[in-house]
Amino acid sequence: MNFTQQYNQFKDRIESCLQTYYHDGIEECKTLTDSVKYSLSAGGKRIRPVLMYAVADLIGCTDQKTLDVFAAALEMIHTSSLIHDDLPGMDNDSLRRGVPTNHVVYGEGTAIIAGDTLMFKAFEIAAEHIYKHNPSEGSVKALWMLGLATGYQGMTGGQMIDMESDPEKTGLDRLILMNAKKTGALIDLAIKAPMYITQTEKENEQPLDVYSKAIGQAFQIKDDILDYESTAEVLGKNTSDIRNNKSTYVTILGIDQAKEKLHACYKKACDALRSYGEKADFLQSLAEYVKDRIQ
Amino acid sequence: MNFTQQYNQFKDRIESCLQTYYHDGIEECKTLTDSVKYSLSAGGKRIRPVLMYAVADLIGCTDQKTLDVFAAALEMIHTSSLIHDDLPGMDNDSLRRGVPTNHVVYGEGTAIIAGDTLMFKAFEIAAEHIYKHNPSEGSVKALWMLGLATGYQGMTGGQMIDMESDPEKTGLDRLILMNAKKTGALIDLAIKAPMYITQTEKENEQPLDVYSKAIGQAFQIKDDILDYESTAEVLGKNTSDIRNNKSTYVTILGIDQAKEKLHACYKKACDALRSYGEKADFLQSLAEYVKDRIQ
Repeated sequence: MNFTQQYNQFKDRIESCLQTYYHDGIEECKTLTDSVKYSLSAGGKRIRPVLMYAVADLIGCTDQKTLDVFAAALEMIHTSSLIHDDLPGMDNDSLRRGVPTNHVVYGEGTAIIAGDTLMFKAFEIAAEHIYKHNPSEGSVKALWMLGLATGYQGMTGGQMIDMESDPEKTGLDRLILMNAKKTGALIDLAIKAPMYITQTEKENEQPLDVYSKAIGQAFQIKDDILDYESTAEVLGKNTSDIRNNKSTYVTILGIDQAKEKLHACYKKACDALRSYGEKADFLQSLAEYVKDRIQ
Repeated sequence: MNFTQQYNQFKDRIESCLQTYYHDGIEECKTLTDSVKYSLSAGGKRIRPVLMYAVADLIGCTDQKTLDVFAAALEMIHTSSLIHDDLPGMDNDSLRRGVPTNHVVYGEGTAIIAGDTLMFKAFEIAAEHIYKHNPSEGSVKALWMLGLATGYQGMTGGQMIDMESDPEKTGLDRLILMNAKKTGALIDLAIKAPMYITQTEKENEQPLDVYSKAIGQAFQIKDDILDYESTAEVLGKNTSDIRNNKSTYVTILGIDQAKEKLHACYKKACDALRSYGEKADFLQSLAEYVKDRIQ
């Protein structure tokens, strides 16, 4: 199986898994169910679940059901953060994953509640699975780490640093910190969750940590390059960061240096997994995909 | 100790407990920490933690640290729902717990992120506690129930039914359903969490369930009566439901019948706990307090 076939297999797997949650809403508020489903089914690269499944294969995590539940939880939280990020009170974006944003279709109030619902749903399905099927120390740790990765120390902390940043004063250090939290924390958890679940931190934490940091940064640098060089038609979202006068790797480093840094991160990600040998081929190709993608 | 002294003791306990989380934010986004602390420290009746501590005493749940963590988690989620409910895209309220609402002080974007942060924090502290101190089946069940009580089946489902309700067409059944979810689900969890933690569903579920439904409904009917009869100065929040043309127990039943129904719920709550004898005195007085409170 080549890289694309393997990627699509992981992607199909998370799509089927997410589908099982599409109709979990209650009959009396069909609009909320529709709104949640609208954003959750809008696709996207599903890179967090793909990373999780790939690392699971790498380190021998075979508990497929636990992986599916945490992959779905991560994608739910990622989607909820996009819905809230796009709100008029935040980035005020009208296009996402190629379709109008949630609040444009369902209204602001429903979009706020849909985001909240997805956050709660993520923790509900993870805790339910732990209670019913896998009450292991490792899976409880993964759930705790999900809480840490999403709040102050992670995603919402990063969103706030992003919102407050003054582009005139934002240097590279603050940009790196912001990205490490806003998008990096969930990517990091996607990569480390299989390790928590199997309780194999000792063997795997060091290489996975290096890979995670490098690929998280590469992902963001590439996003910033696309925001600068591509169009909304190709990206399926507005190229809004530079329009909104936000600091990006491109505005701070310039386009050439941003591309050099992207390449360095790609190299670092590949090198980090050398000790795993051929088993790491997919994750190394994934680093290349992150570097070369066009959307 | 009389009722008021005991209530204040429980209230002091949750205030100290919440205080330990006030400075959990990261240095780089002080505004977010301030915004979260602003709403979390604004007081309120803290009725969910009080109910939880009181039921714990009633049924002999002695794991104080687990109770504290879940009580704090419940109050965090309740506070987050108030922050989001008050947003311009939802109820657009400017006064809450006697002070300007979060978005009025910190702006809409920060208020959205502060609400999200409190939701994540609630699950983080509960999962961390389970991982480090109490990996019992009962506390994992309580965490799962927290996920269920907050999402579609509970709080956000109720918020959505509320937002979509057409006051011309909303009958008593839909109002009861909406309240049971929007505010009732978290109250229900506050009452049942000690039972989950101690795994004593068999002995306690039936009486606690009747008490919970009755006090949840009494709480909402009284809120609607205060919304009709009281003022923003006394309540510390705007009397906005009737102003916003929402259906309430008063608009549907009329003030006299609403008061009769409140009394019936109060009676039902007290009767539900008769089998516990004197041990239930505080919870019976609490039902009276819910009925007679002026804010």
